[in-house]
Amino acid sequence: MNDRVIGILGGGQLGRMLALAGYPLGLRFRFLDPAGDAPVRYLAEQVVASYEDHLAVAQFGDGLMVATYEFENVPVATARALEQRIPVYPPPQALEVAQDRLVEKRFFAQLNIPTAPFAPVDDRASLDAAIEQIGLPAILKTRRLGYDGKGQTLIENRADIDDAWYALGGQPLILEGFVPFARELSVLAVRGQDGAVACYPLVENLHRNGILYRSIAPAPRLTAEVQLLAETYARRVLEALDYVGVLAIELFEADADRAGSARLLANEMAPRVHNSGHWTIEGAVTSQFENHLRAIVGLPLGDASARGCAAMVNLVGSLPDVTMLLALPDTHLHLYDKAPRPGRKLGHVTVCAGDATRLAERLAMVERYMPLSPFSPGD
Amino acid sequence: MNDRVIGILGGGQLGRMLALAGYPLGLRFRFLDPAGDAPVRYLAEQVVASYEDHLAVAQFGDGLMVATYEFENVPVATARALEQRIPVYPPPQALEVAQDRLVEKRFFAQLNIPTAPFAPVDDRASLDAAIEQIGLPAILKTRRLGYDGKGQTLIENRADIDDAWYALGGQPLILEGFVPFARELSVLAVRGQDGAVACYPLVENLHRNGILYRSIAPAPRLTAEVQLLAETYARRVLEALDYVGVLAIELFEADADRAGSARLLANEMAPRVHNSGHWTIEGAVTSQFENHLRAIVGLPLGDASARGCAAMVNLVGSLPDVTMLLALPDTHLHLYDKAPRPGRKLGHVTVCAGDATRLAERLAMVERYMPLSPFSPGD
Repeated sequence: MNDRVIGILGGGQLGRMLALAGYPLGLRFRFLDPAGDAPVRYLAEQVVASYEDHLAVAQFGDGLMVATYEFENVPVATARALEQRIPVYPPPQALEVAQDRLVEKRFFAQLNIPTAPFAPVDDRASLDAAIEQIGLPAILKTRRLGYDGKGQTLIENRADIDDAWYALGGQPLILEGFVPFARELSVLAVRGQDGAVACYPLVENLHRNGILYRSIAPAPRLTAEVQLLAETYARRVLEALDYVGVLAIELFEADADRAGSARLLANEMAPRVHNSGHWTIEGAVTSQFENHLRAIVGLPLGDASARGCAAMVNLVGSLPDVTMLLALPDTHLHLYDKAPRPGRKLGHVTVCAGDATRLAERLAMVERYMPLSPFSPGD
Repeated sequence: MNDRVIGILGGGQLGRMLALAGYPLGLRFRFLDPAGDAPVRYLAEQVVASYEDHLAVAQFGDGLMVATYEFENVPVATARALEQRIPVYPPPQALEVAQDRLVEKRFFAQLNIPTAPFAPVDDRASLDAAIEQIGLPAILKTRRLGYDGKGQTLIENRADIDDAWYALGGQPLILEGFVPFARELSVLAVRGQDGAVACYPLVENLHRNGILYRSIAPAPRLTAEVQLLAETYARRVLEALDYVGVLAIELFEADADRAGSARLLANEMAPRVHNSGHWTIEGAVTSQFENHLRAIVGLPLGDASARGCAAMVNLVGSLPDVTMLLALPDTHLHLYDKAPRPGRKLGHVTVCAGDATRLAERLAMVERYMPLSPFSPGD
């Protein structure tokens, strides 16, 4: 296992946590990230360059055992160029699907995975046609480069249409029907090179201003039916893409259908380790980071079971008093070594407990120390 | 917490695991180690120089928040020189005590912590006197620089005396009575800057050829009386030294005394994180590495409770088939990125379970994959 260097496109907190999980496996890391102050800068080799810099990408790829990404907006061309020389997991096609909301929704539809109703919007006329087809309320979104709530706007009624078009028009868009849902869940699954699949228990996610604020795992009141349904969808995606590594799918849990069956609508997928899986570091037998690495280097997957109950809270914009947090029971701090900035994810806290009641008590204590920071778009 | 650089004297596996535990706390690391191929070389800044190189030590110390050690044979003078400029934890006096078996045993005796009978041996006459006093069998040991079974020889009967003297004579020695003991235990405790103390459950250790082979935590059949006794001894040492950080004490569990009370004899102490505490990474609420860092930077200590049962097996000399190991349930691999060499600790495996019976089953599976390597002195 020595002399095995893993290349990671993107050097943010996900890359940082991949490296921390991978060193114990005897792996080494090289990152490509345009930012000189990337969170990985002190703990691994970093090529500081644009993802479009062909020379830098070639230098980055030199001698790697395998390359992966921790950021889904890596140019697909860069991933494909690397793939000419070394294995790249997950497959670049997964990037392609995840980078375009329309391609993604059509991909889910092809696999018989339910989604909210959607229609492409390329001009003002097609926006009107899409509203005719889907009805209101609906959400107008850019097809590309939207994350953490950026690049989308709600159209509640006809009076909002002009404003929405003014805000987003002139680029490829998608209109999505607004589906009443009880909560957002996410499923994290990992597939090995041998096709073995492991799924983590579903997570319940709560967002604030479009940014993930909190995840609870396993999701409260999770039924075996819902878990199985989500796993079925995840497996379809993994197999359709001949996927290797960790995949996250965000799901809306809608009301049961007329037959009383559970309904999950796929919202989007991330072809990488995911913020809603950070709880797995302390809360699962094998973390998402370790399992992603096991998958891409061809090791057997680890057990994805939860060890108990866990909740993760993101530290966004500014840091709380970490001394107070660390005095709380079974509370674990993860800082990313990033400069504070409104809306920026600076770290997270995971709190664990043996049962859901105890977890709720501990989570309440953790949340008491969270700063009341202004949430605004960031990274 | 940012811009806080921790200096660590020694860049071996203990330093590596300290860094991996410290990055999530927002800490950064600088190591001093004479070896260019130290296990920390890829994951932190390293000054490659001798511990006696005053210029390099000064350069190493520049701008550090605090310094610590992961290797107890760091020259005390180096630690004291650093202490003129920055806080150094644990206190250099702890190094002084731990580096000399005679000083150490006298220190235990002063604190009313039982040990095997011992006597200093400086020449052949004092060896004879020591044998007269202590009786045989006994163990002749160098006072300094002995570890992993190096620098010691058993004197079973009078016929062995000449050989023992021939092997070790000419340097400061100590003769220790051979005490029949049921097993070796170790206690790991951590003390914060505020004087708070947390103790991990006692660990049962098994050595092979003088090298730690396996630890089980909590120690099987551990009674509250024995745990409390060990904690009492650990607290005495911590308080006598105004200690900050993790301390390990190796203990022999002897037969109960005539009144039926438990008896623990202190063998030696290590003023640092310890091999018998590696299980805490997965097996305790807070690992020994994180707790050492929390202590030396002035954060509150984390819970030292076990999460369940855990066993750690050292990978010595050569590596087993890690693919097979990683397929076993709740089995965790830690490689140190060291070149294989007989007797060298290359990594360890920790296996966890909810109860002792299940742990024994899983440990048996893990041990089936251990290489039958020749054990010989190493590092």
